[in-house]
Amino acid sequence: MGIRHIALFRWITGTTPEQVEEVEEALSRLPGLIPQLRGYAYGADLGIGSGNYHFAVVADVASEADFLAYRDHPEHQAALRVIRPLLADRAAVQFNTLEG
Amino acid sequence: MGIRHIALFRWITGTTPEQVEEVEEALSRLPGLIPQLRGYAYGADLGIGSGNYHFAVVADVASEADFLAYRDHPEHQAALRVIRPLLADRAAVQFNTLEG
Repeated sequence: MGIRHIALFRWITGTTPEQVEEVEEALSRLPGLIPQLRGYAYGADLGIGSGNYHFAVVADVASEADFLAYRDHPEHQAALRVIRPLLADRAAVQFNTLEG
Repeated sequence: MGIRHIALFRWITGTTPEQVEEVEEALSRLPGLIPQLRGYAYGADLGIGSGNYHFAVVADVASEADFLAYRDHPEHQAALRVIRPLLADRAAVQFNTLEG
């Protein structure tokens, strides 16, 4: 069993590709810095579905304690400081997965 | 490369655990019926984060064509007929992943 954390973001109007790249750059550092992360995937929406959010982050961890360690980790908090000013909307779920 | 499809749901007030079980039961059939699905995970939010959505579905496929095959598959459409009447909100993203 494990836990999958998902966060979907809708950016504010006027968010630039360069700002999204900064988000991706900040997130790209986290798997190497946060040992609790078993799996980490993120990226911009591909434009296939209408009305979609703009970006997704998926973190796979082993337990609630590991999720909280990720959530509260200084490097994750630093990434959130890049993300928060760009947020129009955020939708999140943490659920149990069979993997791990 | 592959594509990860994510859909997060917020249920309408009064949705019962039995109705959520019906959703899970309908989704549980899909990996066995839709060959384009490389990975499939779903489940109810664990209540760790405040303001979270209630449920998540994550589908991993190889290509946009495979995503569309999943999206339009009669069994997926049948599952959506179980889900739609319960929906207060839906947030979705499809993004590129390195896996696969």
